[in-house]
Amino acid sequence: MAKAADVYFSVDPWKIVEEGFNPAYSRVSESVFSLANETMGVRGCFDEGGSVDSLRGAYVNGVYDIERLGRSYRGIVDRTHFMIPAAEWLMTEITLDGEKLDLGRVRFRDFRREMDMRDGTLTRSFIWRTSTGKELRLRFLRFVDMTHRERAYQRIVMEPLNFSGTVEFSSGLSFDTVHEGYRKCFWHSARVEAENGRLMAQARTALSGQEVFAGALLNLPGAAAAHPTDKTVFLRASLSLEEGKETRVDKRVVILFDGREGESLWQSGREALAACDAVPPEEALQAQKDYWADYWRTSDVQIEAAEGSAAAVAMEQQGIRFCSFQLAQIYNGGSMRHNIGAKGLTGEAYNGHAFWDTEACCLPFYLFTNPQAARDLLLFRYNTLPLALERAKMLDCQGACYPLATLNGEEACSLWQHASLQLQPSTAVAYGVWHYTHVTGDWDFLYDYGAEMLLQISRFLASRVEKGGRTGKYGFFGVMGPDEFHMMVNNNAYTNYMGKRTLDCAVETLDRMRRERPLAYAALVDKTALNEGEILRWREIADQMYIPQDAAGLIEQHDDFFNLPHTDINAIPISEFPLYEHWSYDRIYRSDMIKQPDVLMMLYLYSTSFSETEKRVNYEFYEPRTIHESSLSPAIHSILAAELGKMEEAIRFFGFATRLDLDNYNRNTREGLHVTSIAMAWANIVYGFAGLRSDGEGLRFAPRLPDRWKRLRFSVLYRGRVIQLCMERDGTRFLLSQGDRLEVQVYGRPYTLSGEETRVPCQ
Amino acid sequence: MAKAADVYFSVDPWKIVEEGFNPAYSRVSESVFSLANETMGVRGCFDEGGSVDSLRGAYVNGVYDIERLGRSYRGIVDRTHFMIPAAEWLMTEITLDGEKLDLGRVRFRDFRREMDMRDGTLTRSFIWRTSTGKELRLRFLRFVDMTHRERAYQRIVMEPLNFSGTVEFSSGLSFDTVHEGYRKCFWHSARVEAENGRLMAQARTALSGQEVFAGALLNLPGAAAAHPTDKTVFLRASLSLEEGKETRVDKRVVILFDGREGESLWQSGREALAACDAVPPEEALQAQKDYWADYWRTSDVQIEAAEGSAAAVAMEQQGIRFCSFQLAQIYNGGSMRHNIGAKGLTGEAYNGHAFWDTEACCLPFYLFTNPQAARDLLLFRYNTLPLALERAKMLDCQGACYPLATLNGEEACSLWQHASLQLQPSTAVAYGVWHYTHVTGDWDFLYDYGAEMLLQISRFLASRVEKGGRTGKYGFFGVMGPDEFHMMVNNNAYTNYMGKRTLDCAVETLDRMRRERPLAYAALVDKTALNEGEILRWREIADQMYIPQDAAGLIEQHDDFFNLPHTDINAIPISEFPLYEHWSYDRIYRSDMIKQPDVLMMLYLYSTSFSETEKRVNYEFYEPRTIHESSLSPAIHSILAAELGKMEEAIRFFGFATRLDLDNYNRNTREGLHVTSIAMAWANIVYGFAGLRSDGEGLRFAPRLPDRWKRLRFSVLYRGRVIQLCMERDGTRFLLSQGDRLEVQVYGRPYTLSGEETRVPCQ
Repeated sequence: MAKAADVYFSVDPWKIVEEGFNPAYSRVSESVFSLANETMGVRGCFDEGGSVDSLRGAYVNGVYDIERLGRSYRGIVDRTHFMIPAAEWLMTEITLDGEKLDLGRVRFRDFRREMDMRDGTLTRSFIWRTSTGKELRLRFLRFVDMTHRERAYQRIVMEPLNFSGTVEFSSGLSFDTVHEGYRKCFWHSARVEAENGRLMAQARTALSGQEVFAGALLNLPGAAAAHPTDKTVFLRASLSLEEGKETRVDKRVVILFDGREGESLWQSGREALAACDAVPPEEALQAQKDYWADYWRTSDVQIEAAEGSAAAVAMEQQGIRFCSFQLAQIYNGGSMRHNIGAKGLTGEAYNGHAFWDTEACCLPFYLFTNPQAARDLLLFRYNTLPLALERAKMLDCQGACYPLATLNGEEACSLWQHASLQLQPSTAVAYGVWHYTHVTGDWDFLYDYGAEMLLQISRFLASRVEKGGRTGKYGFFGVMGPDEFHMMVNNNAYTNYMGKRTLDCAVETLDRMRRERPLAYAALVDKTALNEGEILRWREIADQMYIPQDAAGLIEQHDDFFNLPHTDINAIPISEFPLYEHWSYDRIYRSDMIKQPDVLMMLYLYSTSFSETEKRVNYEFYEPRTIHESSLSPAIHSILAAELGKMEEAIRFFGFATRLDLDNYNRNTREGLHVTSIAMAWANIVYGFAGLRSDGEGLRFAPRLPDRWKRLRFSVLYRGRVIQLCMERDGTRFLLSQGDRLEVQVYGRPYTLSGEETRVPCQ
Repeated sequence: MAKAADVYFSVDPWKIVEEGFNPAYSRVSESVFSLANETMGVRGCFDEGGSVDSLRGAYVNGVYDIERLGRSYRGIVDRTHFMIPAAEWLMTEITLDGEKLDLGRVRFRDFRREMDMRDGTLTRSFIWRTSTGKELRLRFLRFVDMTHRERAYQRIVMEPLNFSGTVEFSSGLSFDTVHEGYRKCFWHSARVEAENGRLMAQARTALSGQEVFAGALLNLPGAAAAHPTDKTVFLRASLSLEEGKETRVDKRVVILFDGREGESLWQSGREALAACDAVPPEEALQAQKDYWADYWRTSDVQIEAAEGSAAAVAMEQQGIRFCSFQLAQIYNGGSMRHNIGAKGLTGEAYNGHAFWDTEACCLPFYLFTNPQAARDLLLFRYNTLPLALERAKMLDCQGACYPLATLNGEEACSLWQHASLQLQPSTAVAYGVWHYTHVTGDWDFLYDYGAEMLLQISRFLASRVEKGGRTGKYGFFGVMGPDEFHMMVNNNAYTNYMGKRTLDCAVETLDRMRRERPLAYAALVDKTALNEGEILRWREIADQMYIPQDAAGLIEQHDDFFNLPHTDINAIPISEFPLYEHWSYDRIYRSDMIKQPDVLMMLYLYSTSFSETEKRVNYEFYEPRTIHESSLSPAIHSILAAELGKMEEAIRFFGFATRLDLDNYNRNTREGLHVTSIAMAWANIVYGFAGLRSDGEGLRFAPRLPDRWKRLRFSVLYRGRVIQLCMERDGTRFLLSQGDRLEVQVYGRPYTLSGEETRVPCQ
């Protein structure tokens, strides 16, 4: 593990704090200080812009444009789509004595920026000293409204310390926003307007034809309007400031993206602005505080340090809250039109695309903190089922093939080797449907939506599977498993196993649905033209799926994996990571070095179906061959290591889980946050150290407290109950703060939880 | 085999004749009627252009431009280059009574176009009847000069049949030529000039910065100059024609591309035009006839029909001459700056790129008809060795990796799966060096150039090979063999075997060179920083190379090939070919269906190293799994089938070899001729039916005359000798028409050939 912390921010249980500004760290800070409310997101950029290095990004969930890629071979996408920056609404210019505020150029002191996770606000303050010797204290505050998702707020407070006089102040809205990778603005046909205290702008993307309205209300009496470009609009005013007194400019922003267009959208925008105008900013801020307080009541993870570990544990405590905070910002079930981008709304890397990380890594967090959001994530897949059906056809298959990377349900991955060979997006959706239903018992969801997805995914798998190979059994040929360092392999164990489980689940679900919901079943059969023969075939395939495993339980990752040349991964110099940048592309694919858990991934997902011996044998074989080029990798290893009692390894892998981005472990936080990876930080604690398993009968726990922790407390929601856990060195206390008694297993023994505390001694 | 002849041209032993014009066949005819002299090539387009479907292409060998592809992963090319159309020099406009000659629009009859392979001329004649009832007989003739490679000739003869009067005639030169795929003209900074009877134009490519001069001399007294664009120049004249009399316009063209630029090139162009002016067209035409007569004296293949087969054999006779004619046009050793593009200079498909076909398929033709040209082809590889060294570095390897596709030595293939995984371009160069030296005994070439290539290729292979796998032996992992339907496989037998032979050859060559040419050897060691340890390692790798073969002699194409699911290739409907267009890209790679000979390719190239049993076992296993999506495939199978006495199969596979393009078997001749495939037509006859083997000690023959042939006659050049063969039903007569006595083997028995006929009875 070549990764090391790059500690920059101050440690605080509830805040992320930057004291003093380091320009070289500017983009990392911008990513970390990202705010979002699922509907919109904004990086922690300086309101006044300026010459500091910056990826100036204000994004709207679901807003993208399209690039046509030209024709290639069949089944290879000929167009892709990518998130683009939407309206810039922070835009501010402040000039004093002819000197423009630009932290890359002016003198300033007492710089402090902090994000408070208790209310989702970002504040920044400093004292600007002009070349004429005037000192102006500035405080910027912003938040995006969690209760009215179309709203955002900016406040700028100015206090002259040693003068009274005038500053030139202007505040704007702009669609002149450039996608950094494409170096291009994708917005066209803009309309802008400014009137008394109000700015409005609306624009349309070139190829996707999406239209967005942006409006702002400003308390800037007597301001004049300006339109420097046809996509930008400003209000400008001279503000008279008085020494020692605060002058405050509030900007209330509305961003609308709801499918409406043209005049209709413009009018909705005006109405939304009027509605926003009716709410004083202080009231909005209070609602915001209430929202987050409520969130933390059920979703907090509290870690207390054992003696001598205060510093390390304080960092973990801050880290896990940051992960939880960012996840809840990026997705909380506000809309089933959204999924979770690998970078959320915090940067343009990965093009805003969601991957199978959603179902494989993020879903547990939502299942146990916000089951409605988990359901909405799966509804995103249901709503995009028609596109998955199309995609399967492109691949000469039947049924539904879910995309590797997408914003809108269409396959956006232009690397055919990933898009065409990885079946895990589809099996992950099936896993998600199963896991969600299994944990929540939401049979309505299963029959109304899940069954159809399971059916179509099974159809896809049955049309993609081959019979043959060494054993004459079924298997998938020419695939890429989760370990992306082995391309176009045969009988990848993960793919075969996940395929088998998907088929099993589909058969079982349809069987049960036929009995329990015969009318719905008939309608589904009708809609999908399902015939009995298909189900029989799925059963046969599942029964005869080839899972290569030796007598000791070791599973071969794919055909002939054991015969690959060996790479001593410890002999690779740190300077050669990441390998994709330092090694010739083809060189990565030639040995037994693996990128991320593959066999181990299935042992994690279907944990209860494998014995401890199987986990141990495979862990001990594959772990030393894994270089963790995926940031998801260490957490999976940590969870398995904890289960196997390898607590030192578990802690080592856990090392950066909670602070991956806060401490810029991968040295690429500047591009945005690793949103799906930070989801695994939560799983690392709950599945790893509390030993939660949710894939078997009921819930199972096996708490194993790391040495440096004195106490770990968190709650999980489960079928209408709130289960509170308090893990301590000598044992764990369970308490239902809400809901009926519940039978669970702890260390393999049954316990009944209730409103009374249940104590289970440590094992 | 879903392929069938589409017979369109008339059969004639020495000509290709089109009687009557079929507009739907226009592009096919253009390809077939292509003329070239290695330095320049021109498709058989109509001089007067017009509205008929046409790929108007006049090409200059080595002229290309560049496209930047953007950064991708390491080792994947970030730019590519491609042949572009150069100066258009046929450009002619003829107007009579205001009606412009355009065979897509006007009335005409008695259309006839013919290419005469005895003098390399293309003529076209027809009678144009205007809407005013006038009849004008037109005859167009053109040829590109084989003795002065910068010259080309166009003649237009007009004869009014029922009137006397004036035609408006104009003739031009233009760099306004558009690449059809890119839909773009790549020429810039043009300079054009017209003066008394003389046109000149010069232009430069955008990114490759290549400059070409074009000039023309015209007998058009009193013509006026015109410049419709800044890249086009014309002479225009009104010609008075007299009923029943021929008026002739001769255009003598010079195209210069010699590395000079600007004024210097322009002045060279003027001088070249002046030199051309000194030669009357008739004299040039006579030199052309002499050139081709001389060519056919040594390079002709004559087939006589057995009774009842006259029609079929006449087609084969015409076909084999067409192949031989086109090969000699495209490459004849005029310059070692050129290689042989897959489509030669006959179209823009494959971007003018040369592939490993050159060494694997074309070289034998040159070795035995024009050894100097064979040497020049290899010198192209020597001259581009520095680029192959660069390419190896891009792939994190050492030594020289030769490009899969190139015009200038740089890798131009942007499909990484081919460019990075196919090692056969490098092993083919090594094979070519070895085969050339082995056949010619040209040790000077070997020591001056070949040894360095062998050394650097061996270095590349040694840095790419891995030790490990099932047997702990050496092998190549993550490769694509000749069978492009299996990507990223391990221990491809072809690649391993060719690698082994390359290393053997390098070690042996260097060993011999050290003894025979110690000074040159010392210089080479110095230049390449070769150390003894490397040679020892190459020997070890070669000795321990893994070649998977069972007791019966069956060679497994690559690890686990025998465990792939089976595809019944006969069950694939004809409508699904070519598979690349009809099947999802990834679907092609999942079964035991193979595209073209892979194991069989090595049995062909190193024929003498394998027993008949080995050939039989492997042929019988692989042939039924091969779908021949490469046009090179059937000839290899035909040659092996002939050796195995499977004459029916040999003839079946030979079926379209000689007439692949004449009869448009692949339905894509419109894109250009399959130049490298037609090289295999020659090999199919000489290696197949005469049973020539040139990879063992001396030459071996094993004549097997197909039933429908009465007699086959051809000559081969061999070490200063001309060996004439005359195969007949009862036996074969050998005669040296030039050179010293020679020992050869026929049917495995030694014979000494001399100026006296040697008769070997049939076996």
